[in-house]
Amino acid sequence: MRFQGVKGTRDFYPEDMALRNWLTETWRRVSVRNGFEEYDGPIFEPLELYTAKSGEEIVQQLFHLTDRGGRRLAIRPEMTPTLARMISARAQSLPRPIKWFSIPRLCRAERPQKGRLREFFQWNVDIVGTDDVRADAETILVAVDFLREVGLSPADCRVRINSRPLVAAILADLHVPPDRLPKAYALLDKSDKVPREALAAMWTEAFDNTPPFGRIEPLLGVEGLDRAEAMIEGDAAQWPGAAPAMAAVRTLFERLGQFGITEYCVFDMSVVRGLAYYTGIVYEIFDAGRQHRAAGGGGRYDNLLADLGGPPMPGVGFGMGDVVILDVLRERGRIPAPQRTLDVYVIAAEAALEPRAMQLVAALRGRGVAADFSYRPQPLGKLLRAASERGAARAVILGQETRENGLVTVKDLVSGRQVRRAWDQFLAEPLAPVPDDA
Amino acid sequence: MRFQGVKGTRDFYPEDMALRNWLTETWRRVSVRNGFEEYDGPIFEPLELYTAKSGEEIVQQLFHLTDRGGRRLAIRPEMTPTLARMISARAQSLPRPIKWFSIPRLCRAERPQKGRLREFFQWNVDIVGTDDVRADAETILVAVDFLREVGLSPADCRVRINSRPLVAAILADLHVPPDRLPKAYALLDKSDKVPREALAAMWTEAFDNTPPFGRIEPLLGVEGLDRAEAMIEGDAAQWPGAAPAMAAVRTLFERLGQFGITEYCVFDMSVVRGLAYYTGIVYEIFDAGRQHRAAGGGGRYDNLLADLGGPPMPGVGFGMGDVVILDVLRERGRIPAPQRTLDVYVIAAEAALEPRAMQLVAALRGRGVAADFSYRPQPLGKLLRAASERGAARAVILGQETRENGLVTVKDLVSGRQVRRAWDQFLAEPLAPVPDDA
Repeated sequence: MRFQGVKGTRDFYPEDMALRNWLTETWRRVSVRNGFEEYDGPIFEPLELYTAKSGEEIVQQLFHLTDRGGRRLAIRPEMTPTLARMISARAQSLPRPIKWFSIPRLCRAERPQKGRLREFFQWNVDIVGTDDVRADAETILVAVDFLREVGLSPADCRVRINSRPLVAAILADLHVPPDRLPKAYALLDKSDKVPREALAAMWTEAFDNTPPFGRIEPLLGVEGLDRAEAMIEGDAAQWPGAAPAMAAVRTLFERLGQFGITEYCVFDMSVVRGLAYYTGIVYEIFDAGRQHRAAGGGGRYDNLLADLGGPPMPGVGFGMGDVVILDVLRERGRIPAPQRTLDVYVIAAEAALEPRAMQLVAALRGRGVAADFSYRPQPLGKLLRAASERGAARAVILGQETRENGLVTVKDLVSGRQVRRAWDQFLAEPLAPVPDDA
Repeated sequence: MRFQGVKGTRDFYPEDMALRNWLTETWRRVSVRNGFEEYDGPIFEPLELYTAKSGEEIVQQLFHLTDRGGRRLAIRPEMTPTLARMISARAQSLPRPIKWFSIPRLCRAERPQKGRLREFFQWNVDIVGTDDVRADAETILVAVDFLREVGLSPADCRVRINSRPLVAAILADLHVPPDRLPKAYALLDKSDKVPREALAAMWTEAFDNTPPFGRIEPLLGVEGLDRAEAMIEGDAAQWPGAAPAMAAVRTLFERLGQFGITEYCVFDMSVVRGLAYYTGIVYEIFDAGRQHRAAGGGGRYDNLLADLGGPPMPGVGFGMGDVVILDVLRERGRIPAPQRTLDVYVIAAEAALEPRAMQLVAALRGRGVAADFSYRPQPLGKLLRAASERGAARAVILGQETRENGLVTVKDLVSGRQVRRAWDQFLAEPLAPVPDDA
């Protein structure tokens, strides 16, 4: 073959597509039952929509192009800027809070590696228009509802939760100036991706000894709400600013408890997220063994809409890509078996009956019945095997009796039972069971 | 708002997305019941995949970009080259015929106009690996099965069918040399898009008087199989080459008759399609009044796979975009009413019960029940109205009796009837009907 697909992209052959559809339909079903409505935007946006606010990392990783009018466009690498643009355009008329989800195709021009491709699908769940902590909790509920739906227990996956205001307060208590916070977040976000020594070197290069990495490193190991509270509240003199932010985290965990999902949620001070726009809680979904990258993540972004030129509206939400979660599901044996189903396989046992078989196929499909046939004339036994391989529940056979008496033979391909029915009777109830005593 | 979406693209707000989902789900359901399996490819492909074979027109209209490795890529403007690439890569292992469908997002860098946007969705239905005329007919059956499914009768929409070999034979009989056929097809394809005088001028510029446009123009008015046969077979001396091609068209129409879809099908010699790769029948789906562009079109492409460097495999299929068909459905009053549905709306009549309401919401969702609540504390009457506006079938109210006796009030928002149920009883059967005598 002369042409190959672009590296880092995927071809979805029918078995791959069935799996993708299973995942996206599960995302959709969970979203709808949690009260969210689906939206979507274009695959490309003005390049500026991303350069404006999304942070350096993502800008370098865009597929961008110039259209014939000289406008610079980018294939969307994430959905939140489109969400902000769309909500801003109708901010006056949309009832609040806005509970929306989307399942966009996204592209990033980075080197493909395990868990990260150049093209992927990402479930996005957002609540915009309220700063209520219940909204933060509800987005996490949606993520956990999905994990439960696909059979991933707290022993398989957890939501690891932190708070940017808490991290900011701690860093302020350690004398990091406010304008250096984005750089600090970007470095801390690498804590699970680069070796500790490398992180230490990067920190020292960026911050010298204000504070020394030795003051930062212990924070990255603080896991569990109790330990965090003990640290902050146990030494109020050392952390004068952090206590109120800690209280807000506790309130969030109370809400998570009301939603009945505490077992899936763990406080983790090492989670800060890379994107620049988060202003409140941040969280990431990890497999329990931390063998994979984050399967998803999100947080609160109260300034994003205003920063993009829209009205000031708070928001919170998460994204979950298809690549890592499918790796985790595969590893945990939670991928459903593929199903190729067909209601009826139509067989003409004589060549002369083939036009009538075509007629029956079309009539069945028109009645909403999934029906197929073979293009190759073959012996009856081979056609019945083909019907079974095709996943058909039953075969209907046109033969001598069809010509002479207008009868067809209906064969249940599971039980093996068969029955003769009149043409019209079969068409009226093509899915009627084949009785035991036929 | 500082940013706007790119011209010629669409934002899908929830009501738009619901309509798009209705259309794509209908496409998917019809495809599956016709025995097709879904596939998909990447949003971008190597640019060469299109420059190789798709004809001049489409190449000019590509969104293309260069990645960091210097490779030239294009956002896919059509699906067939991707289909050919994917099938070629697995030609040895895929059982034939290959009956596949896809619903890709496609982009074309052209000036947006009525019925044509720069980004759209297109249903693709293909049968690859057989040159059986039943396959040509079966793709048309799938298109007609869709038209029937959405309530478009033959008085609303027809499939207009022609044959490239027939047109080629006629042009050969008129002394057009074989290497000029692609240009002739490209011009004839404009017959429904530009005024007749403009077409005449273009033809004369390209072909001078070999033949004169006066010999071509009458062909464009030949409609109906009988008229075409009368023309070709009535003057065999004038059309020595066209008779065999006409016979193949008649065989196709016999197959369409066996599928029971003749009423939707009309022979139309003006339909030739613009793309270079068609080799057999070609067809387009038009609204009866020809007020719109073609809603879809396709044909046989027996050389495409080999031309792209793959194995020689015949194929036939069609594409139907979402833009024109939705315009036609809208005009004919066939767009379904939007549905915003929710199973249960949970109301805490007292602030103190709000945590228990959250608990109930989460428990319902976890049982697969679509449940929502209000973030705003409001009087009961307002909340019941909000529940109705949200499309909820029933409200469940937590109040004094919940605190005192563990009871909830279930109110059917359609009948207005209400009943008290124990908490666990409600959770066990949240969708149980509210009885008449409650």
